[in-house]
Amino acid sequence: MTEHERPAVTVDVFALTFLENDLRVLLIQRARPPHAGHWALPGGFVEPHEPLAKAAERELFEETGLKVNRLEQLHTFGDPGRDPRGWAISIAFIALVAADAARLIGDDEEVMAIQWHPAHDLPPLAFDHVQIIDHAMQRLRERADDLAWLGQALPARFTLSELQRLYELAGGQEVDKRNFRRWAFAQGCLEKTEAMRYGDHRPAHLYRLKSVP
Amino acid sequence: MTEHERPAVTVDVFALTFLENDLRVLLIQRARPPHAGHWALPGGFVEPHEPLAKAAERELFEETGLKVNRLEQLHTFGDPGRDPRGWAISIAFIALVAADAARLIGDDEEVMAIQWHPAHDLPPLAFDHVQIIDHAMQRLRERADDLAWLGQALPARFTLSELQRLYELAGGQEVDKRNFRRWAFAQGCLEKTEAMRYGDHRPAHLYRLKSVP
Repeated sequence: MTEHERPAVTVDVFALTFLENDLRVLLIQRARPPHAGHWALPGGFVEPHEPLAKAAERELFEETGLKVNRLEQLHTFGDPGRDPRGWAISIAFIALVAADAARLIGDDEEVMAIQWHPAHDLPPLAFDHVQIIDHAMQRLRERADDLAWLGQALPARFTLSELQRLYELAGGQEVDKRNFRRWAFAQGCLEKTEAMRYGDHRPAHLYRLKSVP
Repeated sequence: MTEHERPAVTVDVFALTFLENDLRVLLIQRARPPHAGHWALPGGFVEPHEPLAKAAERELFEETGLKVNRLEQLHTFGDPGRDPRGWAISIAFIALVAADAARLIGDDEEVMAIQWHPAHDLPPLAFDHVQIIDHAMQRLRERADDLAWLGQALPARFTLSELQRLYELAGGQEVDKRNFRRWAFAQGCLEKTEAMRYGDHRPAHLYRLKSVP
Protein backbone atom coordinates (compact mmCIF):
# COMPACT_ATOMS: atom_id res chain seq x y z
CA MET A 1 0.00 0.00 0.00
CA THR A 2 3.08 2.20 -0.19
CA GLU A 3 1.88 3.91 -3.38
CA HIS A 4 -0.82 5.77 -1.46
CA GLU A 5 -0.22 9.00 0.41
CA ARG A 6 -1.26 8.56 4.03
CA PRO A 7 -2.89 10.91 6.51
CA ALA A 8 -1.80 11.51 10.09
CA VAL A 9 -4.32 9.76 12.34
CA THR A 10 -5.26 10.99 15.79
CA VAL A 11 -7.88 10.30 18.44
CA ASP A 12 -9.75 12.95 20.44
CA VAL A 13 -11.84 12.43 23.55
CA PHE A 14 -14.99 14.31 24.51
CA ALA A 15 -15.28 13.65 28.26
CA LEU A 16 -18.36 15.08 29.92
CA THR A 17 -19.32 15.36 33.57
CA PHE A 18 -21.99 16.99 35.75
CA LEU A 19 -20.26 19.40 38.09
CA GLU A 20 -21.59 22.36 40.09
CA ASN A 21 -25.03 21.79 38.60
CA ASP A 22 -23.76 22.17 35.04
CA LEU A 23 -22.49 20.09 32.11
CA ARG A 24 -18.74 20.36 31.83
CA VAL A 25 -16.31 19.27 29.14
CA LEU A 26 -12.74 18.25 29.86
CA LEU A 27 -10.29 20.49 27.99
CA ILE A 28 -6.53 20.81 27.95
CA GLN A 29 -4.57 23.94 27.13
CA ARG A 30 -1.99 23.28 24.43
CA ALA A 31 1.62 24.11 25.27
CA ARG A 32 2.93 23.82 21.71
CA PRO A 33 2.03 24.84 18.18
CA PRO A 34 -0.18 24.53 16.35
CA HIS A 35 -2.70 26.50 18.40
CA ALA A 36 -0.32 26.93 21.37
CA GLY A 37 -2.22 28.42 24.30
CA HIS A 38 -5.59 27.38 22.88
CA TRP A 39 -7.84 24.87 24.59
CA ALA A 40 -8.55 21.53 22.96
CA LEU A 41 -10.06 18.13 23.63
CA PRO A 42 -7.51 15.67 25.04
CA GLY A 43 -6.06 13.48 22.29
CA GLY A 44 -3.08 12.70 20.13
CA PHE A 45 -1.53 10.40 17.58
CA VAL A 46 -2.48 6.75 17.31
CA GLU A 47 0.52 4.48 17.73
CA PRO A 48 1.19 1.97 14.94
CA HIS A 49 -1.24 -0.97 15.15
CA GLU A 50 -2.83 0.40 18.33
CA PRO A 51 -6.58 -0.30 18.66
CA LEU A 52 -8.36 3.04 18.36
CA ALA A 53 -10.20 2.91 21.69
CA LYS A 54 -6.92 1.99 23.42
CA ALA A 55 -5.23 4.99 21.84
CA ALA A 56 -8.03 7.23 23.11
CA GLU A 57 -7.80 5.79 26.65
CA ARG A 58 -4.02 6.20 26.62
CA GLU A 59 -4.04 9.79 25.39
CA LEU A 60 -6.77 10.76 27.84
CA PHE A 61 -4.82 9.28 30.71
CA GLU A 62 -1.47 10.74 29.66
CA GLU A 63 -2.85 14.23 29.22
CA THR A 64 -5.33 14.44 32.10
CA GLY A 65 -4.82 11.51 34.49
CA LEU A 66 -8.41 10.41 33.83
CA LYS A 67 -8.94 6.67 33.51
CA VAL A 68 -12.01 5.62 31.56
CA ASN A 69 -12.69 2.12 30.40
CA ARG A 70 -15.95 2.72 28.59
CA LEU A 71 -15.04 5.00 25.73
CA GLU A 72 -17.47 4.92 22.85
CA GLN A 73 -16.72 6.00 19.34
CA LEU A 74 -18.49 9.19 18.37
CA HIS A 75 -17.54 10.07 14.80
CA THR A 76 -14.49 10.37 12.56
CA PHE A 77 -13.49 13.79 11.29
CA GLY A 78 -11.46 14.22 8.12
CA ASP A 79 -12.43 17.46 6.43
CA PRO A 80 -9.67 19.22 4.47
CA GLY A 81 -7.90 21.95 6.41
CA ARG A 82 -8.88 20.72 9.87
CA ASP A 83 -5.20 20.56 10.90
CA PRO A 84 -2.76 23.26 9.72
CA ARG A 85 0.05 20.68 9.65
CA GLY A 86 -1.51 18.78 6.76
CA TRP A 87 -3.82 15.91 5.97
CA ALA A 88 -5.11 14.57 9.28
CA ILE A 89 -8.00 12.36 10.31
CA SER A 90 -9.27 12.14 13.86
CA ILE A 91 -11.45 9.45 15.42
CA ALA A 92 -13.45 11.10 18.22
CA PHE A 93 -14.66 9.25 21.32
CA ILE A 94 -17.21 10.14 23.96
CA ALA A 95 -17.13 9.31 27.67
CA LEU A 96 -19.47 10.31 30.49
CA VAL A 97 -17.60 10.33 33.77
CA ALA A 98 -18.20 11.19 37.41
CA ALA A 99 -16.18 14.29 38.23
CA ASP A 100 -15.52 12.94 41.72
CA ALA A 101 -13.67 10.01 40.17
CA ALA A 102 -11.46 12.33 38.18
CA ARG A 103 -8.01 13.15 39.45
CA LEU A 104 -6.85 15.67 36.90
CA ILE A 105 -3.11 15.17 36.94
CA GLY A 106 -1.66 14.87 33.49
CA ASP A 107 1.85 13.81 32.63
CA ASP A 108 2.38 15.35 29.24
CA GLU A 109 4.65 18.30 28.58
CA GLU A 110 2.46 19.34 25.66
CA VAL A 111 -0.27 20.28 28.14
CA MET A 112 -0.21 23.60 30.05
CA ALA A 113 -3.49 23.21 31.97
CA ILE A 114 -6.43 20.87 32.40
CA GLN A 115 -9.94 22.01 33.25
CA TRP A 116 -13.62 21.05 33.27
CA HIS A 117 -15.18 23.87 31.19
CA PRO A 118 -18.92 24.67 31.20
CA ALA A 119 -20.24 23.02 28.02
CA HIS A 120 -22.31 26.05 27.06
CA ASP A 121 -19.56 28.61 27.64
CA LEU A 122 -16.44 27.29 25.96
CA PRO A 123 -13.23 29.20 25.22
CA PRO A 124 -11.90 29.42 21.63
CA LEU A 125 -10.84 25.91 20.63
CA ALA A 126 -8.03 24.46 18.54
CA PHE A 127 -8.50 22.61 15.23
CA ASP A 128 -12.11 21.59 14.45
CA HIS A 129 -12.85 20.76 18.07
CA VAL A 130 -15.93 23.00 18.04
CA GLN A 131 -17.43 20.63 15.45
CA ILE A 132 -16.48 17.58 17.50
CA ILE A 133 -18.16 19.07 20.57
CA ASP A 134 -21.26 20.02 18.54
CA HIS A 135 -21.46 16.44 17.34
CA ALA A 136 -21.08 15.12 20.89
CA MET A 137 -23.78 17.46 22.26
CA GLN A 138 -26.09 16.27 19.50
CA ARG A 139 -25.41 12.65 20.51
CA LEU A 140 -26.20 13.64 24.09
CA ARG A 141 -29.57 15.11 23.06
CA GLU A 142 -30.44 12.00 21.05
CA ARG A 143 -29.52 9.64 23.84
CA ALA A 144 -30.60 11.59 26.94
CA ASP A 145 -33.46 9.11 27.54
CA ASP A 146 -30.90 6.37 28.19
CA LEU A 147 -30.59 7.16 31.90
CA ALA A 148 -28.21 4.30 32.67
CA TRP A 149 -25.85 5.82 30.13
CA LEU A 150 -26.43 9.49 30.96
CA GLY A 151 -26.17 8.84 34.71
CA GLN A 152 -22.50 7.97 34.33
CA ALA A 153 -21.88 11.74 34.32
CA LEU A 154 -23.18 11.98 37.91
CA PRO A 155 -21.26 11.40 41.12
CA ALA A 156 -21.63 7.92 42.64
CA ARG A 157 -24.49 9.22 44.86
CA PHE A 158 -26.87 11.87 43.56
CA THR A 159 -30.23 13.47 44.26
CA LEU A 160 -33.21 13.23 41.95
CA SER A 161 -32.93 16.99 41.44
CA GLU A 162 -29.42 16.54 40.13
CA LEU A 163 -30.54 13.74 37.83
CA GLN A 164 -33.35 15.91 36.48
CA ARG A 165 -31.05 18.87 35.95
CA LEU A 166 -28.57 16.66 34.07
CA TYR A 167 -31.42 15.24 31.98
CA GLU A 168 -32.70 18.71 31.13
CA LEU A 169 -29.28 20.04 30.20
CA ALA A 170 -28.50 16.98 28.08
CA GLY A 171 -31.88 16.88 26.34
CA GLY A 172 -32.12 20.62 25.90
CA GLN A 173 -35.55 21.12 27.49
CA GLU A 174 -37.12 21.46 30.91
CA VAL A 175 -39.44 18.77 32.19
CA ASP A 176 -42.14 18.53 34.84
CA LYS A 177 -40.72 17.26 38.13
CA ARG A 178 -43.43 14.71 38.94
CA ASN A 179 -43.62 13.34 35.41
CA PHE A 180 -39.86 13.11 35.24
CA ARG A 181 -39.58 11.18 38.52
CA ARG A 182 -42.31 8.74 37.52
CA TRP A 183 -40.64 8.17 34.17
CA ALA A 184 -37.13 7.94 35.68
CA PHE A 185 -38.14 5.26 38.20
CA ALA A 186 -39.81 3.29 35.44
CA GLN A 187 -36.48 3.06 33.62
CA GLY A 188 -35.35 0.56 36.27
CA CYS A 189 -31.80 1.83 36.62
CA LEU A 190 -32.15 3.82 39.88
CA GLU A 191 -31.49 2.48 43.35
CA LYS A 192 -32.32 4.40 46.54
CA THR A 193 -29.50 4.46 49.08
CA GLU A 194 -29.73 4.89 52.87
CA ALA A 195 -27.98 8.23 52.63
CA MET A 196 -29.49 11.69 52.61
CA ARG A 197 -28.08 15.07 51.64
CA TYR A 198 -28.66 18.02 53.97
CA GLY A 199 -28.23 21.52 52.64
CA ASP A 200 -30.14 24.72 52.03
CA HIS A 201 -33.25 22.82 51.05
CA ARG A 202 -35.20 19.91 52.51
CA PRO A 203 -33.06 16.85 53.10
CA ALA A 204 -32.92 14.83 49.88
CA HIS A 205 -32.53 11.11 49.42
CA LEU A 206 -29.43 10.01 47.55
CA TYR A 207 -29.69 7.54 44.70
CA ARG A 208 -27.23 5.59 42.69
CA LEU A 209 -27.25 3.72 39.38
CA LYS A 210 -27.92 0.01 39.57
CA SER A 211 -24.85 -1.87 38.54
CA VAL A 212 -25.37 -3.51 35.18
CA PRO A 213 -25.05 -7.30 35.46
CA MET B 1 3.90 15.47 11.67
CA THR B 2 6.42 13.52 9.63
CA GLU B 3 7.90 11.84 12.69
CA HIS B 4 4.81 9.68 13.09
CA GLU B 5 4.24 6.44 11.24
CA ARG B 6 0.97 6.64 9.36
CA PRO B 7 -1.70 4.06 8.60
CA ALA B 8 -3.32 3.44 5.26
CA VAL B 9 -6.85 4.87 5.41
CA THR B 10 -9.80 3.44 3.50
CA VAL B 11 -13.57 3.80 3.42
CA ASP B 12 -16.05 0.91 3.17
CA VAL B 13 -19.74 1.13 2.37
CA PHE B 14 -22.50 -1.06 3.78
CA ALA B 15 -25.35 -0.55 1.28
CA LEU B 16 -28.59 -2.32 2.14
CA THR B 17 -31.76 -2.83 0.15
CA PHE B 18 -35.04 -4.77 0.36
CA LEU B 19 -35.18 -7.11 -2.62
CA GLU B 20 -37.26 -10.24 -3.25
CA ASN B 21 -38.75 -9.92 0.23
CA ASP B 22 -35.36 -10.04 1.92
CA LEU B 23 -32.62 -7.75 3.23
CA ARG B 24 -29.70 -7.68 0.86
CA VAL B 25 -26.20 -6.28 1.17
CA LEU B 26 -24.22 -4.98 -1.78
CA LEU B 27 -20.96 -6.91 -2.19
CA ILE B 28 -18.21 -6.91 -4.76
CA GLN B 29 -15.96 -9.83 -5.63
CA ARG B 30 -12.30 -8.86 -5.42
CA ALA B 31 -10.21 -9.40 -8.55
CA ARG B 32 -6.84 -8.86 -6.85
CA PRO B 33 -4.95 -9.80 -3.70
CA PRO B 34 -5.33 -9.63 -0.85
CA HIS B 35 -8.38 -11.89 -0.65
CA ALA B 36 -8.67 -12.22 -4.46
CA GLY B 37 -11.92 -13.99 -5.32
CA HIS B 38 -13.47 -13.17 -1.95
CA TRP B 39 -16.48 -10.95 -1.55
CA ALA B 40 -16.16 -7.60 0.24
CA LEU B 41 -18.00 -4.38 0.89
CA PRO B 42 -17.35 -1.76 -1.79
CA GLY B 43 -14.62 0.63 -0.74
CA GLY B 44 -11.06 1.79 -1.20
CA PHE B 45 -8.39 4.29 -0.34
CA VAL B 46 -9.21 7.85 0.64
CA GLU B 47 -7.54 10.37 -1.65
CA PRO B 48 -5.36 13.01 0.01
CA HIS B 49 -7.52 15.73 1.63
CA GLU B 50 -10.74 14.11 0.37
CA PRO B 51 -13.71 14.46 2.74
CA LEU B 52 -14.49 10.98 4.07
CA ALA B 53 -18.13 10.84 2.91
CA LYS B 54 -17.03 11.97 -0.56
CA ALA B 55 -14.46 9.18 -0.67
CA ALA B 56 -17.16 6.66 0.25
CA GLU B 57 -19.54 7.99 -2.42
CA ARG B 58 -16.77 7.92 -5.02
CA GLU B 59 -15.61 4.38 -4.24
CA LEU B 60 -19.18 3.08 -4.17
CA PHE B 61 -19.89 4.62 -7.55
CA GLU B 62 -16.62 3.49 -9.14
CA GLU B 63 -17.02 -0.08 -7.98
CA THR B 64 -20.75 -0.61 -8.34
CA GLY B 65 -22.30 2.25 -10.35
CA LEU B 66 -24.51 3.06 -7.37
CA LYS B 67 -25.03 6.75 -6.65
CA VAL B 68 -25.98 7.58 -3.09
CA ASN B 69 -26.00 11.04 -1.65
CA ARG B 70 -27.04 10.27 1.89
CA LEU B 71 -24.21 8.16 3.24
CA GLU B 72 -23.99 8.14 7.01
CA GLN B 73 -20.93 7.27 9.02
CA LEU B 74 -21.25 3.97 10.82
CA HIS B 75 -18.02 3.31 12.71
CA THR B 76 -14.26 3.36 12.22
CA PHE B 77 -12.36 0.09 12.34
CA GLY B 78 -8.67 -0.08 13.21
CA ASP B 79 -7.93 -3.32 14.99
CA PRO B 80 -4.45 -4.74 14.45
CA GLY B 81 -4.26 -7.37 11.74
CA ARG B 82 -7.45 -6.36 9.95
CA ASP B 83 -5.53 -5.91 6.69
CA PRO B 84 -2.72 -8.34 5.76
CA ARG B 85 -0.87 -5.52 3.97
CA GLY B 86 -0.18 -3.66 7.19
CA TRP B 87 -1.55 -0.97 9.46
CA ALA B 88 -4.88 0.12 8.01
CA ILE B 89 -7.86 2.03 9.32
CA SER B 90 -11.25 2.02 7.64
CA ILE B 91 -14.13 4.42 8.10
CA ALA B 92 -17.34 2.52 7.39
CA PHE B 93 -20.51 4.13 6.03
CA ILE B 94 -24.10 2.92 5.84
CA ALA B 95 -26.65 3.61 3.12
CA LEU B 96 -30.19 2.31 2.67
CA VAL B 97 -31.11 2.33 -1.01
CA ALA B 98 -33.97 1.27 -3.27
CA ALA B 99 -32.80 -1.68 -5.33
CA ASP B 100 -34.86 -0.44 -8.27
CA ALA B 101 -32.76 2.70 -8.34
CA ALA B 102 -29.56 0.70 -8.47
CA ARG B 103 -27.88 0.15 -11.79
CA LEU B 104 -25.04 -2.15 -10.83
CA ILE B 105 -22.42 -1.35 -13.43
CA GLY B 106 -19.03 -0.78 -11.92
CA ASP B 107 -16.02 0.60 -13.70
CA ASP B 108 -13.16 -0.76 -11.66
CA GLU B 109 -10.80 -3.48 -12.82
CA GLU B 110 -10.30 -4.59 -9.24
CA VAL B 111 -13.89 -5.85 -9.18
CA MET B 112 -14.87 -9.22 -10.73
CA ALA B 113 -18.57 -9.21 -9.84
CA ILE B 114 -21.19 -7.13 -8.04
CA GLN B 115 -24.20 -8.61 -6.29
CA TRP B 116 -26.95 -7.98 -3.71
CA HIS B 117 -26.39 -10.84 -1.25
CA PRO B 118 -29.02 -11.95 1.30
CA ALA B 119 -27.92 -10.33 4.56
CA HIS B 120 -28.50 -13.48 6.57
CA ASP B 121 -26.68 -15.82 4.18
CA LEU B 122 -23.39 -14.16 3.30
CA PRO B 123 -20.40 -15.74 1.56
CA PRO B 124 -16.94 -15.71 3.22
CA LEU B 125 -15.82 -12.09 3.36
CA ALA B 126 -12.48 -10.31 2.97
CA PHE B 127 -10.71 -8.40 5.77
CA ASP B 128 -12.87 -7.68 8.86
CA HIS B 129 -15.96 -7.04 6.76
CA VAL B 130 -17.95 -9.54 8.84
CA GLN B 131 -17.47 -7.22 11.83
CA ILE B 132 -18.46 -4.17 9.79
CA ILE B 133 -21.65 -5.92 8.66
CA ASP B 134 -22.40 -7.07 12.24
CA HIS B 135 -22.06 -3.48 13.36
CA ALA B 136 -24.34 -2.26 10.57
CA MET B 137 -27.01 -4.88 11.36
CA GLN B 138 -26.88 -3.78 14.99
CA ARG B 139 -27.41 -0.16 13.90
CA LEU B 140 -30.35 -1.36 11.82
CA ARG B 141 -31.94 -3.07 14.84
CA GLU B 142 -31.45 0.01 17.00
CA ARG B 143 -32.94 2.34 14.40
CA ALA B 144 -35.66 0.17 12.85
CA ASP B 145 -38.36 2.38 14.47
CA ASP B 146 -37.23 5.30 12.32
CA LEU B 147 -39.47 4.39 9.38
CA ALA B 148 -38.54 7.42 7.28
CA TRP B 149 -34.95 6.20 7.45
CA LEU B 150 -35.62 2.47 7.12
CA GLY B 151 -38.06 3.00 4.26
CA GLN B 152 -35.24 4.21 2.04
CA ALA B 153 -34.45 0.52 1.50
CA LEU B 154 -37.83 0.00 -0.22
CA PRO B 155 -38.71 0.63 -3.85
CA ALA B 156 -40.34 4.00 -4.59
CA ARG B 157 -43.81 2.37 -4.28
CA PHE B 158 -44.39 -0.42 -1.77
CA THR B 159 -47.16 -2.34 -0.03
CA LEU B 160 -47.72 -2.27 3.72
CA SER B 161 -46.83 -5.97 3.79
CA GLU B 162 -43.44 -5.16 2.31
CA LEU B 163 -42.92 -2.38 4.84
CA GLN B 164 -43.83 -4.74 7.69
CA ARG B 165 -41.54 -7.46 6.39
CA LEU B 166 -38.65 -4.98 6.12
CA TYR B 167 -39.38 -3.71 9.64
CA GLU B 168 -39.41 -7.26 11.03
CA LEU B 169 -36.18 -8.23 9.30
CA ALA B 170 -34.45 -5.04 10.40
CA GLY B 171 -35.70 -5.17 13.98
CA GLY B 172 -35.21 -8.91 14.36
CA GLN B 173 -38.73 -9.76 15.55
CA GLU B 174 -42.19 -10.37 14.13
CA VAL B 175 -44.99 -7.92 14.90
CA ASP B 176 -48.77 -8.03 14.84
CA LYS B 177 -50.13 -6.77 11.51
CA ARG B 178 -52.86 -4.50 12.90
CA ASN B 179 -50.70 -3.02 15.63
CA PHE B 180 -47.90 -2.45 13.16
CA ARG B 181 -50.13 -0.64 10.67
CA ARG B 182 -51.64 1.60 13.33
CA TRP B 183 -48.17 2.44 14.61
CA ALA B 184 -46.69 2.92 11.13
CA PHE B 185 -49.42 5.39 10.07
CA ALA B 186 -48.89 7.32 13.31
CA GLN B 187 -45.25 7.92 12.33
CA GLY B 188 -46.47 10.38 9.72
CA CYS B 189 -44.06 9.43 6.97
CA LEU B 190 -46.37 7.28 4.78
CA GLU B 191 -48.42 8.51 1.85
CA LYS B 192 -51.03 6.41 0.06
CA THR B 193 -50.75 6.49 -3.73
CA GLU B 194 -53.49 5.90 -6.33
CA ALA B 195 -51.73 2.74 -7.46
CA MET B 196 -52.54 -0.85 -6.53
CA ARG B 197 -50.54 -4.03 -6.88
CA TYR B 198 -52.31 -7.11 -8.26
CA GLY B 199 -50.76 -10.51 -7.69
CA ASP B 200 -51.48 -13.86 -6.08
CA HIS B 201 -53.17 -12.20 -3.13
CA ARG B 202 -55.82 -9.50 -2.71
CA PRO B 203 -54.95 -6.30 -4.55
CA ALA B 204 -52.83 -4.13 -2.26
CA HIS B 205 -52.56 -0.38 -2.09
CA LEU B 206 -49.16 1.05 -2.84
CA TYR B 207 -47.59 3.59 -0.51
CA ARG B 208 -44.62 5.84 -0.68
CA LEU B 209 -42.52 7.81 1.77
CA LYS B 210 -43.46 11.44 2.21
CA SER B 211 -40.71 13.63 0.91
CA VAL B 212 -38.91 15.33 3.74
CA PRO B 213 -39.16 19.12 3.42
